[in-house]
Amino acid sequence: MNYFCAMLIPPVSYQPLKEFTKDIFLRIGCNEADAEKASQVLLSADLRGIDSHGVARLSGYVRLWDAGRINSSPLLKIIHETPSTAVVDGDSGLGLVVAPYSMQVAIDKAKAVGTGWVSVQNSNHFGIAAAHAMMALEDDMIGIAMTNASALVAPTFSTERLLGTNPICVCIPAGNESPFVADLATTTAANGKLEILQRLGGVAPTGWIQNKAGQSSVDAFELKNGGALLPLGGDREHGSHKGYALGAVVDIFSAVLSGANYGPWVPPFPAYVPMPENQPGKGIGHFFGAMRIDAFRPAQDFKDHMDAWIKRFRQAKTVEGESKVLIPGDPESEMEIERMKEGIPLLPAVVEDLISLAGRFELQHPFVFA
Amino acid sequence: MNYFCAMLIPPVSYQPLKEFTKDIFLRIGCNEADAEKASQVLLSADLRGIDSHGVARLSGYVRLWDAGRINSSPLLKIIHETPSTAVVDGDSGLGLVVAPYSMQVAIDKAKAVGTGWVSVQNSNHFGIAAAHAMMALEDDMIGIAMTNASALVAPTFSTERLLGTNPICVCIPAGNESPFVADLATTTAANGKLEILQRLGGVAPTGWIQNKAGQSSVDAFELKNGGALLPLGGDREHGSHKGYALGAVVDIFSAVLSGANYGPWVPPFPAYVPMPENQPGKGIGHFFGAMRIDAFRPAQDFKDHMDAWIKRFRQAKTVEGESKVLIPGDPESEMEIERMKEGIPLLPAVVEDLISLAGRFELQHPFVFA
Repeated sequence: MNYFCAMLIPPVSYQPLKEFTKDIFLRIGCNEADAEKASQVLLSADLRGIDSHGVARLSGYVRLWDAGRINSSPLLKIIHETPSTAVVDGDSGLGLVVAPYSMQVAIDKAKAVGTGWVSVQNSNHFGIAAAHAMMALEDDMIGIAMTNASALVAPTFSTERLLGTNPICVCIPAGNESPFVADLATTTAANGKLEILQRLGGVAPTGWIQNKAGQSSVDAFELKNGGALLPLGGDREHGSHKGYALGAVVDIFSAVLSGANYGPWVPPFPAYVPMPENQPGKGIGHFFGAMRIDAFRPAQDFKDHMDAWIKRFRQAKTVEGESKVLIPGDPESEMEIERMKEGIPLLPAVVEDLISLAGRFELQHPFVFA
Repeated sequence: MNYFCAMLIPPVSYQPLKEFTKDIFLRIGCNEADAEKASQVLLSADLRGIDSHGVARLSGYVRLWDAGRINSSPLLKIIHETPSTAVVDGDSGLGLVVAPYSMQVAIDKAKAVGTGWVSVQNSNHFGIAAAHAMMALEDDMIGIAMTNASALVAPTFSTERLLGTNPICVCIPAGNESPFVADLATTTAANGKLEILQRLGGVAPTGWIQNKAGQSSVDAFELKNGGALLPLGGDREHGSHKGYALGAVVDIFSAVLSGANYGPWVPPFPAYVPMPENQPGKGIGHFFGAMRIDAFRPAQDFKDHMDAWIKRFRQAKTVEGESKVLIPGDPESEMEIERMKEGIPLLPAVVEDLISLAGRFELQHPFVFA
């Protein structure tokens, strides 16, 4: 179906794309509320410009459901708790549904005792971390979200992949300014960035990947040959032991605290990849936190100072050729405004994939071709 | 006093060096308990091999006291709290004393409601973050410590220094294995590493520093000419925006939550450097967290899985020339055992400095010369 040339696919409006995504989730057995939530979470990636984590993955979720690895009508429950903590069993549900449920538990606990911290077992991929952490902002809370993922990353000095790209998201409310939203894979570059380079010729910057012997490589296809992504820092001299340590903390908070799988035992996203043997836990793990600002100081004081912080950093003198110092989250929130207005551009391969899903589930696809 | 050649100074035993340090803290007006705690915290850096943060800084603390910037008999108090949170006012006390007090508040709250989170205003430099975070291990808790520091680091695209090296420490208990202790500056390299290179000829790896125009530099003395340390990642292509975001989170949790100074307004450690003008808060800020393991799952289950996690990572196949994959904290805990037995090696300049302090305060210095 190579006749889908990029020129011919105008950006797709948010609402019909979300409705289509929701219909797919309904078709695989989600109830109305879960399908609505899952489609919102998935689309938030497309809106914020994290194209690798949005509708491009919809067919991947369906294949996991086909493979019996996703339960579309999970019974989510708290299996252990204290006033400020909980462990949630995701019952093999969509991470896109398990994560908002768990984040809400963290928020409710923060309302009661100042902060809430929730570790999750037995879940699946949850989309972008920011979608969940940002839930806290509405209640004047700091939101934190992290997840482990299947192993693509080699710790410093290792030739084996033992960690996922294990992202950390921290959202902090401001007053008049947009919130501070840092959402980062604990690797030099997220896997999605590597996929883009694969489509563009296959040369990656040094410090992103290593080959199977653990030597630096610039071949963007190296992961297919036993290579690995590198922790933030790239190599020991540039602090890769720090990126490794941060990825390890995400793994431990998400999975060793909850009873999920960790390290090399985390279930892979592609349904065709076999499950690791001798898994020590259940599913994928996540970790969420919510901290009420007014558990530390009056919310307005905090917001005034947060605005001052943001303004000072925005006003920093820049290196030649750069117009401004960015506040974490700025590019994504600008993208969200733009795409909500102008529509979401999709790659031809993604459009093909969604049309194929529409065919399978006898749904109308949301695309209008020029 | 160049006659102090390194060859002539045998390593100094922990106990006499700690007693000497304690005596100095007593001489500047600390009470017995505070002097004991401050000397323990300071020496823990020397024991763990973080030589830049140990007795090498003792005269620096004394100079801050001389300058009236450290109150040696502070009234530490909680000025805001909920069941799981508190803000502590350090009353301009030694960070070496304010930090353990505040970490204990976090631990006590975790005992009561599962987790405890404490942001601190009006403090000073607190030594190594691990000294405080590790307090949680004794109670089967995960410990977290972070602090802001005076601005030496340029955010991505900035030519101005707006952040300190802002370390994050996360300690996680294990069962039979040593605990996991990640303690990392959110820069490519800590300032102490740069100081070592300054003594060794002055060439730094690329990715550590930039010059005053924001261009990459390998001159280890660049900070004296308006240059800056770089966030973990080094440059945009290698993820410096992630190191910048992490350093920013440390700054905001430590200072915007507590009411301390943030960004470029954090007080400098060297007493001769003037205080920044128009400071928005009080002193330096820290942030501490404690999470009871059994607030998530039974402690023994967690420890068994943590041991399994550590063993799997230790057994990873290594790149040629490296004997093992390290667990964060391994090098430091091995160093602690060695130095507790063999003594602490000190640079001649540090020995000179301590002898000079001994003279000023009419104390016997702890050194035996061959």
